[in-house]
Amino acid sequence: MNFTIQSTLIPVENGYETVDVQIVDGRIAAIAPTLEVVGTPVDGCNKLLLPGFVNAHTHSSEMWQRGIIPPLPLELWIAELYDFTPLDPEQVYLSALGTAAETLLSGGTCVVDHLVMIPGRELETIAATVRAYREIGIRAFVGPLLQDESLTASIPSGGNPQEHLPYLRSTQETLKLMQEVVQQFHRPEEGIEIMTAPTGTQLCSDALFEGCIELSDRHHLCRHTHLLETKAQQMLAEEKYGCSAVTHLMHLGFLSPCTSLAHCVWLDEADTKILAETQSTVVHNPLSNLRLGSGIAPILKYLRAGVNVAFGCDGSASNDSQDLLEAIKIGTILHNVTDFDYQNWITPRQAVEIAALGGARGLGMADQFGSLEVGKQADLVLYDLTNLSLLPRTDPIGLLVLGRPTQAVDSAWVRGNRIIASGQITTISVDDLRRSLFERSQWMSDRQSKSVKQVEAHYRSVLNLPVR
Amino acid sequence: MNFTIQSTLIPVENGYETVDVQIVDGRIAAIAPTLEVVGTPVDGCNKLLLPGFVNAHTHSSEMWQRGIIPPLPLELWIAELYDFTPLDPEQVYLSALGTAAETLLSGGTCVVDHLVMIPGRELETIAATVRAYREIGIRAFVGPLLQDESLTASIPSGGNPQEHLPYLRSTQETLKLMQEVVQQFHRPEEGIEIMTAPTGTQLCSDALFEGCIELSDRHHLCRHTHLLETKAQQMLAEEKYGCSAVTHLMHLGFLSPCTSLAHCVWLDEADTKILAETQSTVVHNPLSNLRLGSGIAPILKYLRAGVNVAFGCDGSASNDSQDLLEAIKIGTILHNVTDFDYQNWITPRQAVEIAALGGARGLGMADQFGSLEVGKQADLVLYDLTNLSLLPRTDPIGLLVLGRPTQAVDSAWVRGNRIIASGQITTISVDDLRRSLFERSQWMSDRQSKSVKQVEAHYRSVLNLPVR
Repeated sequence: MNFTIQSTLIPVENGYETVDVQIVDGRIAAIAPTLEVVGTPVDGCNKLLLPGFVNAHTHSSEMWQRGIIPPLPLELWIAELYDFTPLDPEQVYLSALGTAAETLLSGGTCVVDHLVMIPGRELETIAATVRAYREIGIRAFVGPLLQDESLTASIPSGGNPQEHLPYLRSTQETLKLMQEVVQQFHRPEEGIEIMTAPTGTQLCSDALFEGCIELSDRHHLCRHTHLLETKAQQMLAEEKYGCSAVTHLMHLGFLSPCTSLAHCVWLDEADTKILAETQSTVVHNPLSNLRLGSGIAPILKYLRAGVNVAFGCDGSASNDSQDLLEAIKIGTILHNVTDFDYQNWITPRQAVEIAALGGARGLGMADQFGSLEVGKQADLVLYDLTNLSLLPRTDPIGLLVLGRPTQAVDSAWVRGNRIIASGQITTISVDDLRRSLFERSQWMSDRQSKSVKQVEAHYRSVLNLPVR
Repeated sequence: MNFTIQSTLIPVENGYETVDVQIVDGRIAAIAPTLEVVGTPVDGCNKLLLPGFVNAHTHSSEMWQRGIIPPLPLELWIAELYDFTPLDPEQVYLSALGTAAETLLSGGTCVVDHLVMIPGRELETIAATVRAYREIGIRAFVGPLLQDESLTASIPSGGNPQEHLPYLRSTQETLKLMQEVVQQFHRPEEGIEIMTAPTGTQLCSDALFEGCIELSDRHHLCRHTHLLETKAQQMLAEEKYGCSAVTHLMHLGFLSPCTSLAHCVWLDEADTKILAETQSTVVHNPLSNLRLGSGIAPILKYLRAGVNVAFGCDGSASNDSQDLLEAIKIGTILHNVTDFDYQNWITPRQAVEIAALGGARGLGMADQFGSLEVGKQADLVLYDLTNLSLLPRTDPIGLLVLGRPTQAVDSAWVRGNRIIASGQITTISVDDLRRSLFERSQWMSDRQSKSVKQVEAHYRSVLNLPVR
């Protein structure tokens, strides 16, 4: 559907301008102070138009466990997460809807879902997720989370080799499954893409990475993985490879301009140089890195080295939200305590560019969306600047990034299709979603994870934490 | 007015219980599974009742500059802030209303306003602020921000003594003014208290601190000040006193169980011990400390040393919001990256206690509010657990603290008076407030601060930042 946004504020160099924006056939056709109305007029008065942001790393089904996992580091947190992971595709469908809804209501128009699959029901899991994203209309990159080693293998041995159960599926079966997933669900022309997404060096063999590289080359898929999120992962990579995980991934050929790497907390300067040279993208998940105590990713160093950066919420059980504006705010101001020289700090305008164009670039889509440019697809968000949280009027982007916008999204479009109007999602019933999430859950505070108990002593010993 | 909240969830040891809560004459009269309805019934079904939180440090009039000050450290940021500070008591009134509204809508029922006064119109400034807090009905502690040295004196000399203009008012005049403020506005029985609040060692003489101590002793006032927010302040204290600012304040006699100290980022172990011994309260403003690059306050160390901690938003130009739940979330998870041992991390329940009882304790009011106990004043907040941001149902307090609750406050009461019902503030018109804030402001992005330019070179030289 064609439409024209009238009298909206947009950022221009050194300020803002009031313009009309024509959208024709899902793309931005013109931006100018006064334009003829093409299609439906949309009132942009007292509103700010920005490119949609990318929620560049999440795990949608974690939404079922948000708020419940106690303060634990990744390696123990994930043991609890997997003890209680949802096993019903309908749950997966609902949490994908919830993830998309929260992303959209906080300025995101694209989600990268590193999707945990239900064992034995892998294709159903992906089908449920893709169905949710199609229904709500968000642009989605779905990367089925792959591994071929069991969870306990992600904790370094610390010189005391541990026994691990074999993984439930062989490497070859996994790659065959992925081939099937690509054929069934990869539809770039419809805004739904499959990525190859091994979970990370901590749980994947070289053969799995190599198979993923081959598959992504053959089908032009993006690559996605976790990278050095924790100190334990850094230790493990040294144990496994005798070099950093970044060097190892480079040698395997996994790093590329279409590769996005979640976290990147424990990288050194040589690693950073490799990311810049391979034009890989760092996905910064600041809230999850704080929540799990993983550390502060050296984002200012990445930016200075010319590494592309994007923002992600990470899964809802390690954040515990999908509010992208919150991730952008914290991902912007957090680094000010890592560098006394304020001239290196991220400005609100830079933050918007990281969130939109940085996200698109990491998906090989920088020519398709991520900025307000004629010819680009209309993945757009209109913010209501009369919202209390964006008043008094000062710098709109400063208010949006540094403030705490609450229900400030007035409208959102993906590929020119309107998904939010007057602050309400129009494509699905949020009330029905709330009702379903409510009915399928219950309040609790006393669940116990068996797996945490099993690995905790070894974890504490390897990380040199005091015995209690 | 008397009322009974029916069938509400409250936290109890190791879980939650569904109870009725009777409020009689502004105080909690009974809490039990089934109670006779006294006064108006309030539906607490699918809601969580918590004590109201304390926004334990803010500067309300900064709201006029939120989102606009570029990424700068405190000493330069404040130079820009003061260049454009509001000079009309009506503006001060509106920003106090806005500060209170955002605090209330994010779970706060009490605000500590370290209030910047309009030069020459000090009593009018305070009158406007107190009027706003009375109208909206929030509990308020107003500490007129006092200093007797000029702003440039807050930057260390670095061995090159600088010339500073004399401050606009003498110490004695300031203390006389405060005496008048106390007489006109200090009304503890009505929920409005005046505090003595020198801005900090960086801009106050010993005589000013001593006068404040005398005044607070005479009138039983709380004491409030900024303390070692930045590295520059730590350097300055060493220059001025030859000892830490904490030691100096202890010798002056400023530290006490009714003294709350905003920031406390640059304290060492001896300083921490002094805070514990004097039963002083640290007010943690995590967002402001990140935004200004001040550092991460060592809150886990304070808690371990037995120091009372409270949460604050700090002023809206250094945060740039008054969403208390956001400050609580970040103030909780931020410290996980400062200590590898997760057993020391703050739990969501601890965070609630810090936000409510910790705040009350810092104001000498722990026996009056801050927890759900019979006999305490009814400063209460009811959260709607069917809100999308608090679903699916897991641990309600985990969702509230670690999630990103959006418009989750259903009801709020201060001293038994209802201020929020069905998610809407009932005591003032938020639409009128929005309209006034809108009309009295304009979008901008290109203002230039003269004062920043004047002090920047000296600041960079003293802090050893590279010349550009």
